[in-house]
Amino acid sequence: MKDYNAWLQPIQGAKAMRLIVSDGVPPFVADEIKRVGEWSDGAAFAVSLSLDGSLPPEGYKLTGGKDGVSVSGADGAGLLYGVYAFHDRLRLGASLEELGVTQAPAVPSRVLNHWDNMDGTVERGYAGRSLFFDGGIRYDAARLTDYARMLASVGINGICLNNVNVTPEAARLITEDCLPYLAKIAEIFRAFYIKLIIAVDFTGPRLLGGIATPDPMDGAVAEWWAKQADIVYRYVPDLAGFLVKADSEFRDGPAALGRTQADGANVVARALAPHGGTVYWRCFVYNCRQDWRDTKTDRPKAAYDHFFPLDGDFDANVVLQVKNGPSDFQVREPVSPLLGAMKDTRQALELQITQEYTGQQIDLYALAVQWEEVMASHISQERRVADLVGKEVCAVCAVSNVGLDANWTGHTLAQANLYAFGRMAWEPKAQAREILETWTRLTFGSNPKLVEPLTDMLMRSRGVYEKYNAPLGIGWMVNVGHHYGPSVDGYEYMKWGTYHRANHTAIGVDRTKNGTGYTAQYHPWLAAIYDDPESCPEELLLYFHRVPFDRVLKSGKTLIQHIYDAHFEGAEDVGGFIETWESLKPLMPEETHAHVAERLERQLENAREWRDVLNTYFYRLTAVPDKLGREIIE
Amino acid sequence: MKDYNAWLQPIQGAKAMRLIVSDGVPPFVADEIKRVGEWSDGAAFAVSLSLDGSLPPEGYKLTGGKDGVSVSGADGAGLLYGVYAFHDRLRLGASLEELGVTQAPAVPSRVLNHWDNMDGTVERGYAGRSLFFDGGIRYDAARLTDYARMLASVGINGICLNNVNVTPEAARLITEDCLPYLAKIAEIFRAFYIKLIIAVDFTGPRLLGGIATPDPMDGAVAEWWAKQADIVYRYVPDLAGFLVKADSEFRDGPAALGRTQADGANVVARALAPHGGTVYWRCFVYNCRQDWRDTKTDRPKAAYDHFFPLDGDFDANVVLQVKNGPSDFQVREPVSPLLGAMKDTRQALELQITQEYTGQQIDLYALAVQWEEVMASHISQERRVADLVGKEVCAVCAVSNVGLDANWTGHTLAQANLYAFGRMAWEPKAQAREILETWTRLTFGSNPKLVEPLTDMLMRSRGVYEKYNAPLGIGWMVNVGHHYGPSVDGYEYMKWGTYHRANHTAIGVDRTKNGTGYTAQYHPWLAAIYDDPESCPEELLLYFHRVPFDRVLKSGKTLIQHIYDAHFEGAEDVGGFIETWESLKPLMPEETHAHVAERLERQLENAREWRDVLNTYFYRLTAVPDKLGREIIE
Repeated sequence: MKDYNAWLQPIQGAKAMRLIVSDGVPPFVADEIKRVGEWSDGAAFAVSLSLDGSLPPEGYKLTGGKDGVSVSGADGAGLLYGVYAFHDRLRLGASLEELGVTQAPAVPSRVLNHWDNMDGTVERGYAGRSLFFDGGIRYDAARLTDYARMLASVGINGICLNNVNVTPEAARLITEDCLPYLAKIAEIFRAFYIKLIIAVDFTGPRLLGGIATPDPMDGAVAEWWAKQADIVYRYVPDLAGFLVKADSEFRDGPAALGRTQADGANVVARALAPHGGTVYWRCFVYNCRQDWRDTKTDRPKAAYDHFFPLDGDFDANVVLQVKNGPSDFQVREPVSPLLGAMKDTRQALELQITQEYTGQQIDLYALAVQWEEVMASHISQERRVADLVGKEVCAVCAVSNVGLDANWTGHTLAQANLYAFGRMAWEPKAQAREILETWTRLTFGSNPKLVEPLTDMLMRSRGVYEKYNAPLGIGWMVNVGHHYGPSVDGYEYMKWGTYHRANHTAIGVDRTKNGTGYTAQYHPWLAAIYDDPESCPEELLLYFHRVPFDRVLKSGKTLIQHIYDAHFEGAEDVGGFIETWESLKPLMPEETHAHVAERLERQLENAREWRDVLNTYFYRLTAVPDKLGREIIE
Repeated sequence: MKDYNAWLQPIQGAKAMRLIVSDGVPPFVADEIKRVGEWSDGAAFAVSLSLDGSLPPEGYKLTGGKDGVSVSGADGAGLLYGVYAFHDRLRLGASLEELGVTQAPAVPSRVLNHWDNMDGTVERGYAGRSLFFDGGIRYDAARLTDYARMLASVGINGICLNNVNVTPEAARLITEDCLPYLAKIAEIFRAFYIKLIIAVDFTGPRLLGGIATPDPMDGAVAEWWAKQADIVYRYVPDLAGFLVKADSEFRDGPAALGRTQADGANVVARALAPHGGTVYWRCFVYNCRQDWRDTKTDRPKAAYDHFFPLDGDFDANVVLQVKNGPSDFQVREPVSPLLGAMKDTRQALELQITQEYTGQQIDLYALAVQWEEVMASHISQERRVADLVGKEVCAVCAVSNVGLDANWTGHTLAQANLYAFGRMAWEPKAQAREILETWTRLTFGSNPKLVEPLTDMLMRSRGVYEKYNAPLGIGWMVNVGHHYGPSVDGYEYMKWGTYHRANHTAIGVDRTKNGTGYTAQYHPWLAAIYDDPESCPEELLLYFHRVPFDRVLKSGKTLIQHIYDAHFEGAEDVGGFIETWESLKPLMPEETHAHVAERLERQLENAREWRDVLNTYFYRLTAVPDKLGREIIE
């Protein structure tokens, strides 16, 4: 058994089956199914593969019966997904006779964004070095094939290999210096119906083309992009498109030239249009040089302020890529008010699988739980984020958590996050518990003595992490730069626009109609809910309100007592995880157990650090003692 | 005029002189004096150079008369210093007829420590890249000669080229890979009577020698050091010795092997002894992995605790290098209790010229003012630090502030710090004002309209910087890592042992006999002064005491009001510097003026940042408003 199998493990004691392949079935897909088990022409049980044009794009159907199973797909991709689904059912012990599944993805683009640098490092990567780069382009066909298979098995069909923060070296990926190598990688992924995307530098025309300015209204700039796109598509004819981070965190963009984001996106889009390519244009545009003394500017307002007025100005092949929250992948945020707000603009929802602010693959954090909440979040009384997917939202993207580590994700249990992303991108209304339980069974087998406690632990992991972190949605109380571990004031006096403004009596920024007015960016029904601290969801109370420490919460506790309690509980809960994990020892490979046990010990240390730093900070500030008299360092 | 002249500028309109060189005068010294002015065999005014064995080592005598000046030196070095002294007097317009100066250095070793890395970077360097390294050893004979001359002109006679944090590459400086190149550099400095020192890695025997352990009690280790020293001295026969940072900030040392600091130092010392070399062994040994929750451990106690019990155990050619303060080159600290405490151990006083915590050559900070205080600090009722120099303290060392920048020191006015170090190492009782005024005159000429205001500004610069920094000796409220700008809690929850422990009502760590007991490391007379907040020097109040914010200081202000006032004043004072500097514009080269003006603007921004961050932090914490109602961000 290879280290790299993750949830794609071989079937133990598979029954003998006979394969029937209809005309038109891609040989690659037929080969893929042979990985499942024992095949014999004489076997009674038949598996037939065929195409069925009546299914929706990329859809598949599994039909069971006494003598066999039929796997049909709308197209090659659908059939491949059907094959993996069949594989999963076999491994999960489903009754093949009663099999009856019809599935199709809710959204056409399900995309992974790697933040991998040409030097082999991975920005916010916690799983070793890059799969794709190591000074130059790294090409390990066997490993890349394993990876592509893993992604396809959960329905991912697009991948951007390089970091949105494009270095001058990475900017050359769209030149003939690099394209022959990219073409080889594209070939591997193509077999699995996964298309490449390239993150490009908006200033490419200046950097690579020698044009004085990257101004999108300059004819020479438009020509340069068109010429470059022609070259790129010669090498990778099915490239999904380009991804651009512009006017964001010290990267140049159209704003610096007095142009709009639409001007910037469209010039690239027009170069890609003849080739059927898409521009993914990120909306993470805000002032990262804010003076902390400026209490008027409110960073969460920035994306909406920059993009909403431009609705209708973007070309049809532009997709605006919007992070799920208005801050930056914090443990707890409301959803971005930009999602679904633009009626004439296509959007992509961007999630983050890599655990930048959520434990860095040291702490356990099942993101499925959070994404289920994101998908279920209202954007109006009638509609939720999940309702946008497949409509205004035509793509779901996420930042990868994968690197060269043998277990792909640093923390083995963080594989569940990659798996869950694929599953939720396919079906945004999927339930976290079902996803995590299925992942657990595929990875560790179906023994309920393992499946139940481990699924429970995964389901609780986000809540536990939240307890010992920044309270009630205030976010950001992390160490500067690397973002692991607590620092209450770390970002408080910096230029990043992320302030808690805690003093002796209160904490938080008033973002309501009485404050910065941020809530007005939401649907009025939602704005009214957020505006009133009584109706505001309590887990988001400090996102929207400035609250006195002695305010009594729904639990009957004061805010300060809630902070103490949550932090004591969070650290204690991690201790409970360690006990649970210990009890699972006989049920899994020793090495895997020891690996996770070591991570949990580090998580415990981190949770205690959070507990003590936050409790001490707030005790020193408020001078309010813990009602239960527990130890808080003076 | 070269950029590199600094204070060593040519004499304008020098009178014609006749040179008389006695027997035994090194030709190089005779050549050096020719740089002074116009020489003519027929001139009436004579300058005679001669040796005078009755002078103390390195001493010189200048004697004036109607017909000429006699410069005599105890030895080549003394004569060279006499030549530079003569040069200075000429430039300062002294009456040569009445000249009568006899000088000798107070201490035999006056040493510069470069923290230069082999890759060309300089740790805590703010003046460009390294003079000595750039991937390998950099050799620019002209620039190095200029540098050596500048150092010799202020009496510096030792230099360590490489960082005490010795990388594996730099560890090879004592191998034949590097020694031929070091020998060439040594030759340049030798002409100016400056000896090289090499910073070595205590684990060299393992790293380079392939010995399993660097254990100093292992015979193979002793043999390796001896063999390596033999090789080194073959290339640099007059090497002053090795400098070692061991058991310090993640560097290995004898403690990790269960050996004492004396065991570690002596094994290296015995290798150097046959060659007349010295080991400079740094005392910056403390626990840099302290848990902030541990309120018993007190970092300032560490050096004394580690080294004092070993008095008498060190070989005669070991010199313990002790930083001036027990913390780490903060703006305000008491002097280290280790200084002068060991009766049978030789010590070096280590100062820092590079402005790590004192403005990073952006902010103006004349260190002479601080060093004058250090030298004047009591170690007992009878003795001061300056009294130790030339006795228990046989060397004065300092971390260089020099790099490849054309002005040597990044901020042109920071040249005054290099100059002042040489002057104070030579004469520890020298007065800051005289030094700074002389530097100003040598650099900018003697126009009193410039000399007075600029000297005043330099004299005030330390006090102004102190006003807008961490209050009353508490130190450390800087941004983590780079150490520029304010972060009150930056180090508060870290492992470095540097805590202010401020809460709603009080701030500071009690280091008295009632607290951590740190004061007991001082002479009882001094300990009693520090133990009592009434007698403790107020500028050090928060170094030694935990103090309520409402304590009334000698000024009649509360502590909290003092913090507000000092921070408002500090920023305002920088505004005053800018005005003063503006008024000097007609009196100096335009380029120099503009360069410093730009630094002062950046200093103003920094001072305002300090003002606002500290005032806001303490206002939020204490909820005490400013009595004068000035603006403090909520």
